[in-house]
This record gives sequence, structure tokens and C-alpha cells, in this order.
Amino acid sequence: MTETNTQKCRIAIDAMGGDFAPKHEILGAFAAMKEDNSFDLILIGDKEKILEAAIQENVTIDDKMIYHSSQIIDMHDKPTDAIKNKPDSSLVVGTKLVREKKADAFVSAGNTGAVAAVSTLLMGRLQNVERPTIGSYIPSKNNATFVFDVGAFVDVKPNHLLGYAILGNIFVKELYNIQNPTIGLLSVGEEEEKGNKLVKETSQLLRETNLNFIGNVEGRDILNGKCNIVLCDGFVGNILLKFGESVPGFMKYLLKQHSETSLIEKIKIGLFKNTLKKALSPLNPELYGGVPLLGVNGISIIGHGSSSPLAIKNMIIRAKEMYDKNLLTKFEEALKHYAVKK
Amino acid sequence: MTETNTQKCRIAIDAMGGDFAPKHEILGAFAAMKEDNSFDLILIGDKEKILEAAIQENVTIDDKMIYHSSQIIDMHDKPTDAIKNKPDSSLVVGTKLVREKKADAFVSAGNTGAVAAVSTLLMGRLQNVERPTIGSYIPSKNNATFVFDVGAFVDVKPNHLLGYAILGNIFVKELYNIQNPTIGLLSVGEEEEKGNKLVKETSQLLRETNLNFIGNVEGRDILNGKCNIVLCDGFVGNILLKFGESVPGFMKYLLKQHSETSLIEKIKIGLFKNTLKKALSPLNPELYGGVPLLGVNGISIIGHGSSSPLAIKNMIIRAKEMYDKNLLTKFEEALKHYAVKK
Repeated sequence: MTETNTQKCRIAIDAMGGDFAPKHEILGAFAAMKEDNSFDLILIGDKEKILEAAIQENVTIDDKMIYHSSQIIDMHDKPTDAIKNKPDSSLVVGTKLVREKKADAFVSAGNTGAVAAVSTLLMGRLQNVERPTIGSYIPSKNNATFVFDVGAFVDVKPNHLLGYAILGNIFVKELYNIQNPTIGLLSVGEEEEKGNKLVKETSQLLRETNLNFIGNVEGRDILNGKCNIVLCDGFVGNILLKFGESVPGFMKYLLKQHSETSLIEKIKIGLFKNTLKKALSPLNPELYGGVPLLGVNGISIIGHGSSSPLAIKNMIIRAKEMYDKNLLTKFEEALKHYAVKK
Repeated sequence: MTETNTQKCRIAIDAMGGDFAPKHEILGAFAAMKEDNSFDLILIGDKEKILEAAIQENVTIDDKMIYHSSQIIDMHDKPTDAIKNKPDSSLVVGTKLVREKKADAFVSAGNTGAVAAVSTLLMGRLQNVERPTIGSYIPSKNNATFVFDVGAFVDVKPNHLLGYAILGNIFVKELYNIQNPTIGLLSVGEEEEKGNKLVKETSQLLRETNLNFIGNVEGRDILNGKCNIVLCDGFVGNILLKFGESVPGFMKYLLKQHSETSLIEKIKIGLFKNTLKKALSPLNPELYGGVPLLGVNGISIIGHGSSSPLAIKNMIIRAKEMYDKNLLTKFEEALKHYAVKK
């Protein structure tokens, strides 16, 4: 019964969220519809601005696809004040549509903290979820590594990490077709006695489940793809994610520095540029469909403020996949099964 | 008076510490003496094995340079049991020489936790130091970025991080000739209100000093070289360091994967290999002279188990530099000046 969802999926897009809104949102939405026309799209935002951008970008928008909202939440808005101060913002209106079952998923490249907070407050949490979590795909040697949490909460307890493991397990299993995803607990050494208090207590909890927990993993094990799910608090995960995101830029900087040492090296680097770009393409975060907020009673996908149309398209496709595979019901069943301790 | 040290420096080397001991230790020591003959060298370890390796490597060792010790601490020894269980190990004997003022510095590629624990216990801590710290150079756009702490302690308090800042400040100032090193506190956002409890309280403490504290920094700011000293607890620092160390191997993996997509790409990558190696050479951790343990009453430098002769050489040169510049006295003066709160 819960295997797949046969109803047509309705995806609400925060058309005013990203740094290049509504342009990238419109282009991304249209690219998604071109790839897969089996879902309905709702563009939330300033109707006039959306239509204006559509004309500029030469795409035709049906008036009925737009759901007008007059306000915009930007990077300076405090996440917790968003609902009270900007009730008619595209973010609040979009998540409300999911809450009221008028949409099945919400996709936004807006203020991450605000999207997470508003989604949690308006969609509510799934039963047995104390803390929702943001998971991020990390390129690795196994092509299916996710880090939970990358920033939803910086101070957590062992049972929160256990909850992330249960949600992440379903997510990776269903979307990456991995039967029994391996789960590692991020620490400073593989040995059980290494780590801080949070790690030691969480390790104990995880061992009591039948999840595929492989024990502590170290910083180097992430890129090496030692496991599918890397568990850590949002403080560590957020720092790691941002560090990782800065790696390609730093490589580029080193190549540029070196190209200035001699003309021959400069020419060589110029000739090699394309090959290098292709080789490092798995590092491109735009391919991974944003970061899902798991544990809320709805599908909520968050993207970088600078999301390109490609990134937006992939976020929409990812949201649809989560809907089609009926992930929310599967999350609930798994949470009930493990009966997360409080 | 404290500007420089005019006494001849005596450096004790743990000849049995690394994975390739005593071979790499001997070769590294001789390379260091070739580069700088103004210090005395003491090779601590099994005399017979050291002489045997010296013959194999075709280097001449004066008997007097060897300080015999019969035991070896390996990666499986518990750091805290090292002194009791293996009192005649090269690690315990070497740090004791520093304690007894028979040597000025100790250099080891042995078990990091054991070197840190034994150095702390036998050399003792400098006055006003509650927690020693291990700092690691991180390649960055400013060429002088250190992360403190990368693994000495996983659970810390705000005044410990303040102590790291004071020690790191002197270290970077003296060894990198930077007048007023910039200090950043690693967090999940630049805004003062972002971060966990430790960050918020430490931020407050740092603002009360006249250290060049620039506020919170994020994961991406490390490689971008936003500051010279990045403060975090040893849990976060150790995970980051190991993640960073795995980046070059992952790049190599991606290039190899791509080279298998076509013969032309394979040839291109083959031709570019050397240029890439040179361009990415700043990432080579062997250049940076190991990781110093700061806050102990002696100079103690720790290297990777897999340290090459080049790495060992640079660790010795770094130890000598710390001695010549009289860092211990400067640390003590700075700690007194800031009167670290307990």
C-alpha cells in the first residue's frame, strides 16, 4: 500500500526565494516540467514580477500556475519571526499550502534557517520526531553518501541523532536503491571509546537498533565513501559542508597561482581546463537536488541562495521522487518501528 | 632578553615512533643536519636497530648521538598507560630528557594521543595553561592559517579556547612574522547570535581581550584564508583536518574515474599530471613541520605515523625555530598578560 503514490504530485515553488529570483526559479521550473510532465506546478510569489521575468526569459506562463503572495523573506529576516512579520511571504504561503494539503511539496532557494523553521512550524513534525534534520549529499567514492545534520540544530541529544539515522536510512534506501544503507557516527577515531559524550551515548543507542550501524567513522571516511549516512550534530555538519563547498574554489586558486609561474604551465593549464572540469563535475552541488528537510509532515527541499536553474530543476525532480515513493508514510512507519526513545 | 635563544639547541628525536621507524627518522634527521648544523641531535631508541638502519641507508651515525631505550609505544597502546607500562620507551625517555633539561625539544611521529598525553604529563603545563592544544597548519589563500585544536581535547570550555587563542597568536606571530594575527571562532554563521553555547560564550571572552579577534568564521573561510587562527574544539578540528587530508586522494580518484571514460582524456590527464602535482603541492602536509603541541613546558612536535624523511626533517627544523625564537618564554609572558580566567 505504501510503496508508491498514485495521485498526481503538486509542487509549490518559492518563486521569490533565491538570489536570482524569480528568474532562476522560473527557468528551473520549466526545465523540470520539460523533463517530467506528470506533476503540477505552483509558482508562489509576486504575480507581476513573475510574469515580467517570464516575458524577459521568453517562457510562457499560464496565469493559473501563479499563486500570488506580496511579501519576500530575505537573508536578513530572523527565521523565528518570519511567520508573524511576513504572513504573506512566498515562504509562509507556500508551506501553508502543504499544511492545507493543497500542495504536496515545497521547494525554496530562500533563507535556509527560515525555510527550516517555517516548514517545521507550519507543516508540523511527523509523529515520534523531536528534531527535523537537514541532510546533504556529499560526493564520495561510493556515490551515495549523505551527512545528517548539516545545520538544522547545533545542540543535540543522542536520541535526536538516532532519529536522523532512522529518517536518513529510509531516504537513502528509497532514493538510491540501497537495501541496507551503512550508517557511521562521525568522531575522532574508530575505536568505540574515542569521541565526545554525545558520540559515546549515541553509539550505545544505535547498537540497540537493527540499523546497519558500522560504528564510529572519521573525517577522512566521508569522501572515501565508507558509509552512506554520516551522523553528526548540525554544528559539525554545517562546518564540514561549507568547508567542502570551498574546496573546488581553492583548487582553482592553486591552479591559477601555479599558472603564473611560467608561460608553459599557463598554457598547459589552459589546455587541461575542460578535462579537469569534467573530471571534477561530481563535486557540483547543483546536481544533487538541494538539501531535504526530513522529519516534517510534508516534503520540504531547501536550496542554496545562489541556486542556478539547473539546481532548481533538480530540487523539483527530487521533491517529486520523494512524493512518488511515498517517503512520508515510510518515515512514519520506520519511526514507529524503532519507537525512538525520548 | 627573550627575543632569541643563544644557547645551542638540543633536539631529541623519537627514532622508533613512526610507521617507518627508525629509517625515516634517521634520514629525516640527517637531512635536517645538512640544512642547519647549528643544533645537537639525540636519537632515542633501540641502539642496535638504529645502527642497523643507518648502515642500510648508508649514513654514518656517531654512537654518542644515540640514547638507548628498549621499548616502543605503538598505535595500540593507551595514551594514559604509556608511562606506567613502558617507562623505557623512546617516547617516555625522550620527553623525560626535555623535562630534565637535557634536551630542548622532542619530535615524534608516534601515536599522537600518547605523545600529547606523555608530553603533558612529563613536561608539565606552562603556568596559566589548563589545556594544551595541538595546532595544525591548513593550506589557504593567505598561506598562514592554523586550526587550534585538532585533537588534544574533544570537550572544552570557553576559557580553554581563549588559551588556544593566546598560544596560537604567539606561534603564528613569531613563526610567520605576522604582527597581529587575525583570530576567528569557527561557527555556523558569521552573525554573533549563531553557533552553539561554546561559541557564544567564547566569543564574549575573546571580545574582552586585545587579541585581533574578527568574530565568527564559517567552514568556507578556512581555505579562503579569512583569518590566521581558526579556533574550535578538538572534536571539530580533528574531523576537519582528516576530511581535508582526504581531499587530494579524492581528487586523484575523480581524475582516475574520468580517465577511464576515453583514451583521449586518459592521455590528457597523463600529460597534465606533473603540472597538477606542482600546482597542488601546497596541499602536501609534509612541508609543514608536523603539528606542535602548545601549552606544555617544553617543545613537542608531533608528526603523522606515515611521516616521510622530508616530514621528519621539517618537524626538526620547526622545533629548532621554536627554540631559537624562545617561544616558551613568550607563551608564558602572553599568558600572564591575558591572565586567563578560570
